[in-house]
Amino acid sequence: MRSGRRDVADGSLTPEQILDAAEDVLRRFGPQKTTVVDVARALGVSHGSIYRHFPSKTALREAVARRWLHRVAAPLGQIAAEGGPALPRLRRWLDRLIALKRAKVLDEPELFAVYHALSDDAGDVIDAHVAELIDQVARILADGMVAGEIRLGEPKAMARAVLTATAAFHHPAHAASWRDPLIDQTFEAVFDLLVTALAPPAVA
Amino acid sequence: MRSGRRDVADGSLTPEQILDAAEDVLRRFGPQKTTVVDVARALGVSHGSIYRHFPSKTALREAVARRWLHRVAAPLGQIAAEGGPALPRLRRWLDRLIALKRAKVLDEPELFAVYHALSDDAGDVIDAHVAELIDQVARILADGMVAGEIRLGEPKAMARAVLTATAAFHHPAHAASWRDPLIDQTFEAVFDLLVTALAPPAVA
Repeated sequence: MRSGRRDVADGSLTPEQILDAAEDVLRRFGPQKTTVVDVARALGVSHGSIYRHFPSKTALREAVARRWLHRVAAPLGQIAAEGGPALPRLRRWLDRLIALKRAKVLDEPELFAVYHALSDDAGDVIDAHVAELIDQVARILADGMVAGEIRLGEPKAMARAVLTATAAFHHPAHAASWRDPLIDQTFEAVFDLLVTALAPPAVA
Repeated sequence: MRSGRRDVADGSLTPEQILDAAEDVLRRFGPQKTTVVDVARALGVSHGSIYRHFPSKTALREAVARRWLHRVAAPLGQIAAEGGPALPRLRRWLDRLIALKRAKVLDEPELFAVYHALSDDAGDVIDAHVAELIDQVARILADGMVAGEIRLGEPKAMARAVLTATAAFHHPAHAASWRDPLIDQTFEAVFDLLVTALAPPAVA
């Protein structure tokens, strides 16, 4: 967590520094009230220095959202690429996704609200994020098909179905229900359905 | 749809008339601005006449929400009780649930927003509604277990899992995605997973 004004010579200003400052400002003022001028002021630079890297407020907000979502997708991508049996890997991947989303909601509810509001304006960024997650799950399923652990099918369509069927546990729209004491038990029941559905048919 | 003021003698005022008027007023003013006095004025009665049937504003709002949700649950209950093969009945039940929710969102977005806001204050009413839906699905699954069409298991836990796994298609929190052209295709993929998961194991 960073805060306060930093004095950065305009010439050495990096996109990462701008994004750090934008995150601070968004957290303090909320997405409605945050302006590029606020971000520039926090960095002690002119707003022109920001526009040099991000040509509009929208571009800056999208970049903040993209970086935030990358922090979710990157560790998941490592799990997807791990190799080994597909169903346990899918379980680890889902557990991690759910843990990451819950941590953001439960540990930093204000920041989460900021990003939830941001994401309403950043449809393309969200779509790209979801497409990346689907690709990761499809990779796990495709590996499992090759190994005979997963029923044959179109991996991307199945991956989209798996993500959709588990949305109640990781989609921000359901965050209000994540404190429900039944939620873990319900996830086990849904995961059991998925495991049964994904397993290859028994050889008669 | 009803509108405008009706003159109802206090003595003959029924709960249904009050709920009709409350729905009108909620639709026009929204849940934040609606008061019992507004409802009384729309009916041409004193607010005491309303309190005789509904002892508080909360009781009135909950009754409105309960009646609205009953309009969803009642036709679904008929499908659950129809008899016949379980998986096609489950499909008809889900199709109807999705159609009812989509109709409310897409045809009457303002009224839906009113009820969505109401439902935040009416947790017990919503919980009872969800419990009723789970019972209906559990009945379909239990019938299917008896007939050998559904894998043996605890019907209520499986019903909760089925409802949760399809939440993206009927939970109001996902309403924004229901215009997505891919949504029907994704539902087919999720339903395919469920059919596979619910089918009895092949006899080896």
